[in-house]
Amino acid sequence: MANQEDIFKKVISHAKEYGYVFQSSEIYDGLSAVYDYAQNGVELKKNIREYWWQAMVQLNDNIVGLDAAIFMHPTTWKASGHVDAFNDPLIDNKDSKKRYRADVLVEDYVAKIESKIDKEVNKAAKRFGDSFNKQQFLETNQRVLDYQAKADGILKRLGKSLENEDLADVKALIEELEIACPLSGSKNWTDVKQFNLMFGTKLGASADSAMDLYLRPETAQGIFVNFLNVQKSGRMKIPFGIAQTGKAFRNEIVARQFIFRMREFEQMEMQFFIKPGTQKEWYDTWKEKRLNWHLSLGMGADNYRFHDHEKLAHYADAASDIEFKFPFGFKELEGIHSRTDFDLSQHEKHSGKKLQYFDPEENKSYVPYVLETSIGLDRMFLAVFSNSLLEEELDNNTTRTVLKLPAVLAPTKAAILPLLKRDGLPEVAKKLVDELKWDFNVAYDEKDAVGRRYRRQDANGTPFCVTVDHQTLEDETVTIRHRDSMEQQRVKLDKVKGIIAKEVDMREWLKRI
Amino acid sequence: MANQEDIFKKVISHAKEYGYVFQSSEIYDGLSAVYDYAQNGVELKKNIREYWWQAMVQLNDNIVGLDAAIFMHPTTWKASGHVDAFNDPLIDNKDSKKRYRADVLVEDYVAKIESKIDKEVNKAAKRFGDSFNKQQFLETNQRVLDYQAKADGILKRLGKSLENEDLADVKALIEELEIACPLSGSKNWTDVKQFNLMFGTKLGASADSAMDLYLRPETAQGIFVNFLNVQKSGRMKIPFGIAQTGKAFRNEIVARQFIFRMREFEQMEMQFFIKPGTQKEWYDTWKEKRLNWHLSLGMGADNYRFHDHEKLAHYADAASDIEFKFPFGFKELEGIHSRTDFDLSQHEKHSGKKLQYFDPEENKSYVPYVLETSIGLDRMFLAVFSNSLLEEELDNNTTRTVLKLPAVLAPTKAAILPLLKRDGLPEVAKKLVDELKWDFNVAYDEKDAVGRRYRRQDANGTPFCVTVDHQTLEDETVTIRHRDSMEQQRVKLDKVKGIIAKEVDMREWLKRI
Repeated sequence: MANQEDIFKKVISHAKEYGYVFQSSEIYDGLSAVYDYAQNGVELKKNIREYWWQAMVQLNDNIVGLDAAIFMHPTTWKASGHVDAFNDPLIDNKDSKKRYRADVLVEDYVAKIESKIDKEVNKAAKRFGDSFNKQQFLETNQRVLDYQAKADGILKRLGKSLENEDLADVKALIEELEIACPLSGSKNWTDVKQFNLMFGTKLGASADSAMDLYLRPETAQGIFVNFLNVQKSGRMKIPFGIAQTGKAFRNEIVARQFIFRMREFEQMEMQFFIKPGTQKEWYDTWKEKRLNWHLSLGMGADNYRFHDHEKLAHYADAASDIEFKFPFGFKELEGIHSRTDFDLSQHEKHSGKKLQYFDPEENKSYVPYVLETSIGLDRMFLAVFSNSLLEEELDNNTTRTVLKLPAVLAPTKAAILPLLKRDGLPEVAKKLVDELKWDFNVAYDEKDAVGRRYRRQDANGTPFCVTVDHQTLEDETVTIRHRDSMEQQRVKLDKVKGIIAKEVDMREWLKRI
Repeated sequence: MANQEDIFKKVISHAKEYGYVFQSSEIYDGLSAVYDYAQNGVELKKNIREYWWQAMVQLNDNIVGLDAAIFMHPTTWKASGHVDAFNDPLIDNKDSKKRYRADVLVEDYVAKIESKIDKEVNKAAKRFGDSFNKQQFLETNQRVLDYQAKADGILKRLGKSLENEDLADVKALIEELEIACPLSGSKNWTDVKQFNLMFGTKLGASADSAMDLYLRPETAQGIFVNFLNVQKSGRMKIPFGIAQTGKAFRNEIVARQFIFRMREFEQMEMQFFIKPGTQKEWYDTWKEKRLNWHLSLGMGADNYRFHDHEKLAHYADAASDIEFKFPFGFKELEGIHSRTDFDLSQHEKHSGKKLQYFDPEENKSYVPYVLETSIGLDRMFLAVFSNSLLEEELDNNTTRTVLKLPAVLAPTKAAILPLLKRDGLPEVAKKLVDELKWDFNVAYDEKDAVGRRYRRQDANGTPFCVTVDHQTLEDETVTIRHRDSMEQQRVKLDKVKGIIAKEVDMREWLKRI
């Protein structure tokens, strides 16, 4: 069994080789933490976006869409708290001139302590064999207890310092722990400073009148500032939701893990506006609804778990993540947040305009509460892609690489293959392409032996191959080969569309939610 | 007949009132030349994008998609020429501190001369009545000839100065013409300076290592830098195309005309890679193909015209615009450009990497030529929206406002209306909503008299209303009312889906191209 790092490397190289994800501006040696979606990637991304949109907007008559601009009035970000509090604590090493996230330096130090605990556990396990009780060992071994106490103490102090914005103490902690720059080995550090994660730019040309703008760090605020215009022009009644997909930007210092954490990324967010006091009920409802959406894709219930937040952001009264088992472990895929009336109230305060809903049943106006569901489209892409990529051992002792994407999301639904490049087989195959292409993406491939073409389509994630052979000319039948089972069935030409459509049709998948 | 300006105002106010387009950050008094797409606008925009994507990518087996990031390596924009030459000539008035595009100041001056010609024409038309011959008057009246000569002389000199980058002469021209600041009336001008239209930002946190980035001013370069990766991983053979939709940004000084010219906008571009020497043939082919795409929407052949460029950009050997008749006259909607090998060669030069295609038929490698089709999604939105908005006089001497969007693009395909809010009619209507919503966007509306609801759906652009009444309970028939003809037909409930689907199905529309 390959280890996690190897699997992840395989994911990245397969994504490049099969036209899913390329490094941005690769011919100029790339741009750090920015990626481009290639010819297959753009289709997979588009299908995920559409699957979310139909489930959220098309199928719910009380949820409507929105497409707000990336540029927003700068006061938006004052009101939302991003100007003042969307920071990372940074520290420079004076010798290497390299900049780090101060909290990450400390956390990496703690991770080293924890790996010492792991070593002690492994040593003891070897020594005691079958009679080893890990839990008991962790709770009684003095060396382990000391390590654990040290790690806990460091993390507690770090958390408190960050909470109190006591950056001097964060620096003191780094110095006390004698943390060295991984690059230079030097312990010669600057002070810790807060660095805002928003990208800035300037609107307008005149030095006098130019306006400092930010690239939005989240799409949610576009929904909040448009809340009343949508409610009124759309005659919406609470409870109702506004859904949006779009780009957001964060100037991450530590951007890594491929497309998991990028500087430019896409969100799919929905803000559900509700009556104050009903937030608990809607929180539970949306946790369940969103998990069901994920489960409908059939990627395995064991790969998901909820992580309820104990420490809440200032705007939230409840928050939970849906975590997915990525190649590097369980990580956040989607957040469900009960945001109270924080955002709308802040915008009321900063704009001087009322953002209230008149409730005809209650016969009074109020600022609605908000229940948010927020998912990273790129993370969802990575979840689907990495979970689908398999090396399978076959009966004949060979292996095949297969990308078992949920058929509804696959970029190409079927490849049409003439067995040979002659005897009129290509013509029949191309005619079939021309018939099917109106309903879904199809590919035509006539190069190489048919077995090799099957493998290529397996690696590409294509759920069906349809082979046209000499028998087709006689009885109008073709072979449909199924990617996952590798089984083949012989069917009449005029049945092909129906058989494939049934498996790839988005409506059928949405009905499983 | 209302004048152009009134019609355009009506377009803008209708777009707001019916949830198509809102000013961005309106609660903060807006952000100039930035707009948000509201609940109906996002669906119309999405449908236009999909109509383009299916026509370009899904139906052409030699065109694939791409979704490159907005952030690109800064050398990209050096290679493309944008760093050096993507400028507007700007001038400041020293008294008002207001900044202007120098060329626009001169053009506005010329427009005033031209309005004097119009006045002479109108005066003469009144004087001579039926015997007035406009063309003859323009060609013989000395005052008109003098005005025309002056206007032509000014524009010729402006064009030459800009071409030679002789900014001192542009300033001299402004001073000679005694152009005053519209705000202060002062003629106290600074020198003319070039101002780059790209938005800048900084990537990374360290002052030392921060990288100056630009927000892409066009999506095309994302295709060029990925050309070879797509060609190889997709096993593409020339001729083939790469299509992309996405945001681009230009720091326009004079941004006006609603969503026609925005600072943040979306493009739909396709670069078609071809063998050098075949560009003329492909240029003609794509001009025809793209015009046919537009015509398939049925918005009237008279509303389109080609404008072939006489003056070509440095990268082009032929260029033509498809112009559309907007409320403010014929303006560019889409460009078809024969870009030669300029872009790929520039990227070869700046990256030091080969961007060549090995042609198996010719048995040699070359830098392909490029044929580009480039359309502004927001402009297409404005074309569709403004052309569809009509005030119709009805037989009973009333008028109705109707948005005759092509049915394939309409945000909501059908509204389901119970005639009354009782007797079980809402339940039957809702059941129909639940049946239809899997296939297309449907709305449910039970408020107000049914005639008023029809009007509301007319103004909303919904092609069909389906009314459930008491007869429905007896014989399972409903009334389908057609938006454009206002005709009503009585049909069986189980026929509703088929009747509507036939009219709104994208496949049916695409077949007309």
